Amino acid sequence: MRNLIKVLVAMQVRFCTAFLIYYEEATIVNNKIIKPSILSGFMELLPKEQIEFNRIMDIIKNNYEKSGFVPIDTPVMEKSEILLAKGSEETDKQIYRFTKGSNDISLRFDLTVPFARYAAQHMEDLVFPFRRYQIGKVYRGERNQKGRYREFYQCDIDVISKGELSLVNDAELPSIICSILKEIGLPAFKIHINNRKILNGFFKYLDVTDATNVLRIVDKLDKIGEDAVSKELITIGLEAEIVDKIIAFISIVGDKAKILTKLKALNIEEPTFKEGLEEIEIVSHYLECYGVTEENYVIDLKIARGLDYYTGTVYETILEDFKSIGSICSGGRYDNLAEYYTKEKLQGVGMSIGITRLFSQLKDIGILKEETLPSTLTKVLVVPMDEEMDYAIAAMNKLRKEGINSEVYLEKTKFSKKLTYANNAGIPYVIIIGEEEIKSGLLTFKNMETGNQEKLSVDEILNRVK
Amino acid sequence: MRNLIKVLVAMQVRFCTAFLIYYEEATIVNNKIIKPSILSGFMELLPKEQIEFNRIMDIIKNNYEKSGFVPIDTPVMEKSEILLAKGSEETDKQIYRFTKGSNDISLRFDLTVPFARYAAQHMEDLVFPFRRYQIGKVYRGERNQKGRYREFYQCDIDVISKGELSLVNDAELPSIICSILKEIGLPAFKIHINNRKILNGFFKYLDVTDATNVLRIVDKLDKIGEDAVSKELITIGLEAEIVDKIIAFISIVGDKAKILTKLKALNIEEPTFKEGLEEIEIVSHYLECYGVTEENYVIDLKIARGLDYYTGTVYETILEDFKSIGSICSGGRYDNLAEYYTKEKLQGVGMSIGITRLFSQLKDIGILKEETLPSTLTKVLVVPMDEEMDYAIAAMNKLRKEGINSEVYLEKTKFSKKLTYANNAGIPYVIIIGEEEIKSGLLTFKNMETGNQEKLSVDEILNRVK
Repeated sequence: MRNLIKVLVAMQVRFCTAFLIYYEEATIVNNKIIKPSILSGFMELLPKEQIEFNRIMDIIKNNYEKSGFVPIDTPVMEKSEILLAKGSEETDKQIYRFTKGSNDISLRFDLTVPFARYAAQHMEDLVFPFRRYQIGKVYRGERNQKGRYREFYQCDIDVISKGELSLVNDAELPSIICSILKEIGLPAFKIHINNRKILNGFFKYLDVTDATNVLRIVDKLDKIGEDAVSKELITIGLEAEIVDKIIAFISIVGDKAKILTKLKALNIEEPTFKEGLEEIEIVSHYLECYGVTEENYVIDLKIARGLDYYTGTVYETILEDFKSIGSICSGGRYDNLAEYYTKEKLQGVGMSIGITRLFSQLKDIGILKEETLPSTLTKVLVVPMDEEMDYAIAAMNKLRKEGINSEVYLEKTKFSKKLTYANNAGIPYVIIIGEEEIKSGLLTFKNMETGNQEKLSVDEILNRVK
Repeated sequence: MRNLIKVLVAMQVRFCTAFLIYYEEATIVNNKIIKPSILSGFMELLPKEQIEFNRIMDIIKNNYEKSGFVPIDTPVMEKSEILLAKGSEETDKQIYRFTKGSNDISLRFDLTVPFARYAAQHMEDLVFPFRRYQIGKVYRGERNQKGRYREFYQCDIDVISKGELSLVNDAELPSIICSILKEIGLPAFKIHINNRKILNGFFKYLDVTDATNVLRIVDKLDKIGEDAVSKELITIGLEAEIVDKIIAFISIVGDKAKILTKLKALNIEEPTFKEGLEEIEIVSHYLECYGVTEENYVIDLKIARGLDYYTGTVYETILEDFKSIGSICSGGRYDNLAEYYTKEKLQGVGMSIGITRLFSQLKDIGILKEETLPSTLTKVLVVPMDEEMDYAIAAMNKLRKEGINSEVYLEKTKFSKKLTYANNAGIPYVIIIGEEEIKSGLLTFKNMETGNQEKLSVDEILNRVK
């Protein structure tokens, strides 16, 4: 073969160019095919899953917008000095960081740090209280493990103000999350609410100085259990009597009325504690104003949400029947969002849904059944029997004009193959157009699920499909 | 101050912890504030611009979906061996490439290569013809210049099939783009259509062997003009007579009928040329079936769209009154999408809108007037005069339930400040609730534009706002 080519080239046979090009391409194909794959730890969905994923994203977006939050979009890449201003060994290790030209670049690992930078940078152009949402991909080079992704979407809402921000906001945010989770169709869920001031105040009252460390240990209660928590607390130097009091305290459970009554009955006069108790009472009152019932929220004295960020209300959201998957939506109130970028103290409260992980978990626990999902958004497929393409396109134009997702089967093939396409994709309705249909003006309208077929005018079909 | 702290620490005065922590924070703030900024070459929008940007994105998305295209979403990061399989010095230089652990990673520079990889990887699970759209950010480390971004959104649609794909698709795609650009509200635009086979066939007919090079030069016609193109063509060794013929050919302009007549009158029997001519005639016929008139498309023999990718129909889209900004939506037909990842020949046709650049250009040429845009999506702000929060939330709940974007002004402040918030954000309607309103059940409904105020029931307000 190579010799033949040499001969042809030597002969400068012009009409062979096409052949030579073809031969070269074939060589590339035969020698250099790279197995198509993606990096491990990344989620990529098939169309049917993607459609469902986007449906959930749209529900989140629409509810955020309905609640008066405005969208922002920040670059995926930021200056490393910005993203790492706070610094934490854990974060630093996970971060995707590299240089390009003279730039030291990092990929964002959450949407909160970019939001802090955005708020500080554009402060003069924002209207406060500033209610923003952001949905975007973030990156963490985590150790590869099931359900943890290196690229995932976060869906954040935050309200921030210069100075004081009303506690009613702390109730509104979970009410929006509640609407979203209901609309998505999640099974029984509860938003767990606590207030860091209650915990901090209680520790002060007990003369526990190392509150940060205690909180860190208490935070593990659900993961490691009561006994292990007790042991760890003793290890860091607390007396057994104090540990018992802490365990008894975080074991106060029940409905809102019961918990509030018990907390008040402790008669703790420590000011931070009292403030936290007042706050959680106000927040739970407004939660009910916003229509959230105790079916979907609970006061939970155990949750603390990390260490150094939140200062008041904190949230976690648990699927009642699938507690093991952990919190699907978390957040809380903070005092100083952008301390590394501005002297202005931006107070706020925010929540975030980690939709990529949630989606993968919904598949795992069988709530999301892929096999029942269609691979299409198309409602109607218009199928010309043979040479009726112009007519088919005209019919389809009317459907699209009415906002109905529709397509014409454009390829020349056997009629049965055209219906197979509708079947495989999961398109619910097919319009068949042949000579007869063009003569009569009545189109054959087929319901792909029932197999039912009728002769209808375009207008009648429009009404059916709508 | 430092001495005082030392004393306090030495005294181990427990109640001073809060003070110490405050002092430390203040120190951080005073010493370590980092000026908030982003990397150069990245677009970041204020909320009012972002809202408008998202409106345009939604129009694109909705039209793609209405036309039966399904969404896919691929990782921003890919294995470098995948993204760089094709290889090109230009691309390699621009790419963001780095290593993390043992992975050689690149950020995608377009959505076509990831689509090729996706189609090859998931071929068994896709329904063909596969109609997909993808909207996502891509990355190019270009030299920093106005209107060129290092991170930008592409909005792609492609139809691919295993083997033959009907030419009607080549008409449908620009018809969808046409609907989108009209809905966005762009001024006079024309989709310029050509077919590579016409050019290639014409060059064969002229015995021009170096078609690739000639195409590359001809492609520059709009940028450098006829004379410069002639000179370059002579430089690469073409005879003056041939160059004149090429220039005369690409100067054939006019409406569809005129161009087709002139092309036929050339009586060129070269098979590729004839095929191209037939194809463009079919495509323009179906364009009209899809409702695209010559107001919005034109056959343009000059355009060639790059060198090695497209094999048939090619598109560029030009704003008639702003030709200098170049094509705002381009694409074409290709024979072998995924040649580096599979032996299966995937034929297809695709178009892409570069929305980030377009948006920035619309601002520059004054089509997009920022100062007229609201900073909010909220339609109604509910303002409690004083202590009417519960009632205000209840009223707002009804609005949201009807799908009306609404919020309550939650902060305690002077009444006038609450109205200022509505004004600054650009919220069109305000509901005012005071003691009187609660007694009568009639709320004060204020049109912020006209200043008009009426007493209305919630239901009446719902009807007004809808």
